Amino acid sequence: MHHFTRDDIKSLDKRYRAHLVNSLSGFKSANLIGSQNTDNQTNLAIFSSVFHIGASPALVGFVMRPDNGDRHTLDNIKYSKQYIINQVSTEHYKMAHQCSARYPRNESEFSHSGLSTQFIANINAPFVKESRLKYALTLKEIVPITLNNTQIIIGEIIHIICQENSIQPDGYIDIEALETASLSGLDSYHSSIRMARLNYAKPHTPLIPLTVSGSPLSTKK
Amino acid sequence: MHHFTRDDIKSLDKRYRAHLVNSLSGFKSANLIGSQNTDNQTNLAIFSSVFHIGASPALVGFVMRPDNGDRHTLDNIKYSKQYIINQVSTEHYKMAHQCSARYPRNESEFSHSGLSTQFIANINAPFVKESRLKYALTLKEIVPITLNNTQIIIGEIIHIICQENSIQPDGYIDIEALETASLSGLDSYHSSIRMARLNYAKPHTPLIPLTVSGSPLSTKK
Repeated sequence: MHHFTRDDIKSLDKRYRAHLVNSLSGFKSANLIGSQNTDNQTNLAIFSSVFHIGASPALVGFVMRPDNGDRHTLDNIKYSKQYIINQVSTEHYKMAHQCSARYPRNESEFSHSGLSTQFIANINAPFVKESRLKYALTLKEIVPITLNNTQIIIGEIIHIICQENSIQPDGYIDIEALETASLSGLDSYHSSIRMARLNYAKPHTPLIPLTVSGSPLSTKK
Repeated sequence: MHHFTRDDIKSLDKRYRAHLVNSLSGFKSANLIGSQNTDNQTNLAIFSSVFHIGASPALVGFVMRPDNGDRHTLDNIKYSKQYIINQVSTEHYKMAHQCSARYPRNESEFSHSGLSTQFIANINAPFVKESRLKYALTLKEIVPITLNNTQIIIGEIIHIICQENSIQPDGYIDIEALETASLSGLDSYHSSIRMARLNYAKPHTPLIPLTVSGSPLSTKK
């Protein structure tokens, strides 16, 4: 086993450290965040830091880095108070990654990536038409993290659009059947293979795998 | 496509909504957090909300829910200011899930799950011996999220212990070669298949896959 101490970590080359530390949290979600500005100029940016905060109210957060090239997303969200989180599927991961390139503010990542916009009434932000699970949020809070000048952007989910056959009887969405991609480190994209859904764990009680139905991938296995 | 509005989401059964909303953020990291109290009583709890905040300083956060049975973790961290995040591998996911059962404070999840403790000098918290990538943190900040009474616990990484052959020349750790598991929803565990590492995206420049070397899984493909 290799052991890095705090001094080792501090003395690493900056890019090496970025790759290393970004690998530590484990697998990350792959999401495209759609937003638009006062002129209805659309923006689409990939984020690997979207995380669940709570189900009632339905709250989701993501980390906005101070050195993130795409401050367009934050500016747009501050203006419109609305944004869309779109899950990235394995079919579209290269298009999604291309959205991390630094395009000028007056050019939309939609034109350059090959992904398409989709709009619904009263929501001032673009969905990704190709995404199989996507949701609109209204901005609730921007939490400053003074330790490193990042911000955590928290929104409440106000519309969910999802491929019908992936929703299980208990509410779980089979995101593997949707072929949702995951990320590791800064740039590695992965598909998934389900091992099992497990029942609610109790002391001194054996775990039982739960059935996942109707999904092309899970029935294949 | 199924469309849930905000009113639909609010009127869902509580458990259904929990499964549904927990599926929205995408794939989640699977980590066991080790801590101990004043009497050196160890605690081990599974968290799916560990997320990267920054590489310099090396900061990682996780969400502590108000209704989380395992307040033992938070009490211990507040006392000792130290804790360990251990990646869960596919070999051990059932043992890890069993750690979510509500054991009394005077019983350690280590005894009940079959996982083993490992200690290093000057760190007052248990590593999981079986974990292939694990790191010690010192508590830096507890950020209250007043929207739903959760807290975000932020720590700085002070020791990293990792299987040597998974560390790539540029610092990326091949967590797929480590067979790190991911989670979706509340209870679904997954292994991964790498599609590609992609180079840093630039406007009007084709993406190039990067080589991942020395990992049993990536050479197999």
